[in-house]
Amino acid sequence: MREVALLVVGGSVAGVAVAVSARRHYPDASVLVVRPEQDSVIPCGIPYLFGTVGSCDRNLMPAERLSNSGADLAIDRITAIDRQARTATAESGMVVHWDRLVLATGSLPVVPPIPGADLPGVYAVHKSVDYLNRLLAATTEARRVVFVGGGLIGLELADEFRKRHIDVTVVEMLPRCLDLVFDDDLCLRAESELMRREIRLRTGTRLTGIEGNGKVEGVTLDDGDRLAADMVVFGIGVRPNTALARDAGLALAPDGSIAVDRYLRTADPRVFAVGDCASKTHYLTGLPTGLRLASIAASEAHCAGANLYDLRREFLGAVGVYSTKIGSLAMGLAGLGEKQARGLGIDYVIGAAEATDKHPRAMPGTSPVSLKLVFRRHSRVLIGGQVAGGDTTGEITNLIGLMVQQRLTADAIAAMQYGTHPTLTASPGMYPFPNAAEAAIARLRR
Amino acid sequence: MREVALLVVGGSVAGVAVAVSARRHYPDASVLVVRPEQDSVIPCGIPYLFGTVGSCDRNLMPAERLSNSGADLAIDRITAIDRQARTATAESGMVVHWDRLVLATGSLPVVPPIPGADLPGVYAVHKSVDYLNRLLAATTEARRVVFVGGGLIGLELADEFRKRHIDVTVVEMLPRCLDLVFDDDLCLRAESELMRREIRLRTGTRLTGIEGNGKVEGVTLDDGDRLAADMVVFGIGVRPNTALARDAGLALAPDGSIAVDRYLRTADPRVFAVGDCASKTHYLTGLPTGLRLASIAASEAHCAGANLYDLRREFLGAVGVYSTKIGSLAMGLAGLGEKQARGLGIDYVIGAAEATDKHPRAMPGTSPVSLKLVFRRHSRVLIGGQVAGGDTTGEITNLIGLMVQQRLTADAIAAMQYGTHPTLTASPGMYPFPNAAEAAIARLRR
Repeated sequence: MREVALLVVGGSVAGVAVAVSARRHYPDASVLVVRPEQDSVIPCGIPYLFGTVGSCDRNLMPAERLSNSGADLAIDRITAIDRQARTATAESGMVVHWDRLVLATGSLPVVPPIPGADLPGVYAVHKSVDYLNRLLAATTEARRVVFVGGGLIGLELADEFRKRHIDVTVVEMLPRCLDLVFDDDLCLRAESELMRREIRLRTGTRLTGIEGNGKVEGVTLDDGDRLAADMVVFGIGVRPNTALARDAGLALAPDGSIAVDRYLRTADPRVFAVGDCASKTHYLTGLPTGLRLASIAASEAHCAGANLYDLRREFLGAVGVYSTKIGSLAMGLAGLGEKQARGLGIDYVIGAAEATDKHPRAMPGTSPVSLKLVFRRHSRVLIGGQVAGGDTTGEITNLIGLMVQQRLTADAIAAMQYGTHPTLTASPGMYPFPNAAEAAIARLRR
Repeated sequence: MREVALLVVGGSVAGVAVAVSARRHYPDASVLVVRPEQDSVIPCGIPYLFGTVGSCDRNLMPAERLSNSGADLAIDRITAIDRQARTATAESGMVVHWDRLVLATGSLPVVPPIPGADLPGVYAVHKSVDYLNRLLAATTEARRVVFVGGGLIGLELADEFRKRHIDVTVVEMLPRCLDLVFDDDLCLRAESELMRREIRLRTGTRLTGIEGNGKVEGVTLDDGDRLAADMVVFGIGVRPNTALARDAGLALAPDGSIAVDRYLRTADPRVFAVGDCASKTHYLTGLPTGLRLASIAASEAHCAGANLYDLRREFLGAVGVYSTKIGSLAMGLAGLGEKQARGLGIDYVIGAAEATDKHPRAMPGTSPVSLKLVFRRHSRVLIGGQVAGGDTTGEITNLIGLMVQQRLTADAIAAMQYGTHPTLTASPGMYPFPNAAEAAIARLRR
């Protein structure tokens, strides 16, 4: 029997981050991470395997991160947990006695039970090196690929496949691609960018079946069309991987995720859950949310790692901060977009500003930046924002996210101090945050 | 006599921003901006005129910003202010009666009274379109240029002149270039980058004179050396332009700037001052500071514009947020660096993290990012940070600035929610802010 202070089940983003964080907060605690593969793929880098980066072994989480932290790694699969005895049993026969347990078992991609879904040539985005290597090998033969789901991962994959001149179609049942992700203005800009890149879009259309004789030959749509295809890739969402937790008698949330409190504890206070497998509420609504992002997993892990033996931090819900790039258009959103705020019946006011990401405009490589901030009318507190721009869009999105998390008012953002530089940011007068905040204040006055 | 609600004297970054902000907050107030030139140059863009951008008319503040706001512009020079009568008299003879007055008269570059400082071929960085066009014209003949002052503007100018294959030397009296700007590690990295670009550095050396017969032929240094040169450019600092304020009987601060309170009011509550001409205290020390940045000017202007008829915002001092790029190395600092904290006798703890600005590392165009955060040991509140990286360095610096201004603790930063994307940011696990904050927490525990 192996004795550890902390056993972490799962070694992707959340599992590694919780181990590293635990070692920082409780350096005397021994930590063991158990995961089924020697290496873990960087989840958000998966689409880029297929065009820009080219191979799975160039998209692995750095192995030294765990070893430098002093945590141990075992390549194995935990098959059972005994919470009374505080033990876990692995496929190899290894039994681990733990004092604290963190479940970071992640999620599995959803494939709907439609005819033909089990044909060779049908794929989903499993975060496994072996699986992704098989998918990557299969793409060398692919000529016509249908992506099911026009969300972030589907479009990023489509964009990357297109870089290899593969004929690509995206099927999305909602009226627009990225419909659940961005406000309509950005959905439309993204669709233009996809069309410019000769990626075909079938929005407002549902896949009804996959056809083929021993392998994928086409898909059928609910409008009666049939599209020829030799590969189908699903990117329609994930479901939490919770078999182990359920078998251990831990309470699940209605959506099937492992129920956790604001300290990331499960119903058993010695057992924590973080990342895609753990239940989530939204920071701004207090309601359950389907948001599943590697960055949320990392934030939860930093929180859980601090809380193992002392409740040092509260995770007050997922803000939801994400960014993407389709073609040359980078886009990001944090908190609630205008569409979401409207859908929730929130009384909001918008403040918008246009700028450039370098200055003056004549600076080479300058991209326009559009920032939109969403404030509650009642309190003037920021509840979200959206940005489109160049390569600084990711960090601008993180600025919005930080402002949302810190519950800044329009006045606080208007009084924000910032730095500017011709090669790195908008100009001092046009920097978009204070201008967008003041535009909202001007509207609130009316 | 012209009647206006608000007269703004000066129409660079601060003057324009206060006019725009005033129109947003008090849309019934008539606003007149008076400045001596039709167009205003973007101040931080000035170095880039000489290499990357190429001409002054491509580095002008957008004229429509003022006109869109509904403010008026007069090209003139205010020569006297009568505070009792609430009038201002211009060079043209125009007399303006105002209800509120904002002084945004900026600063003038310092040229020390050394022998030869008045020779043709000696320049400083005046923020005037006419002057800069003359300097730009002169550079077509320049073969060997000496820059006096190895601060931000001196190095940026040297870097740009070098792009035109001009022989460039920087003379800096402090032991390192950027000595007052960054911690020593970044000063050294910047010096390496300058040497790689074949820019000669003479640090720890003072200019004693400029020689020449009717025009610049060389400079003498305090170590006895003489450097041949056909142009000398000073970038050693600025002094506030306050003649008008002084003549109007307004109180000045000991450093010669116009004394203002936390609402940006001068000793006369109807008269405000913003930007380089106004006195400044540091946000973190409460002491007078020599920081003069266009971005601080804009933040003060946003504050003053809100306060004209109602004290809506407080400016609690300059955080000091700035970034630059020398060659391919971008650098930024916000708040207090480690060197400054030590100099002030602050008991601090450092947290550092390394990451990349895209991920995985194999993503093309990826730059390493080094983040260092400085926390007060007593309160664990962030008091500053420094970053070196790629083109997202400016916005990462602004994240540090926002965290300093919001007085976030190490735990709050460790619990920061953020988004990541392969083409735009570090990876979810390596995102530098929570990791640097946790590294500081681990040190605090010891």
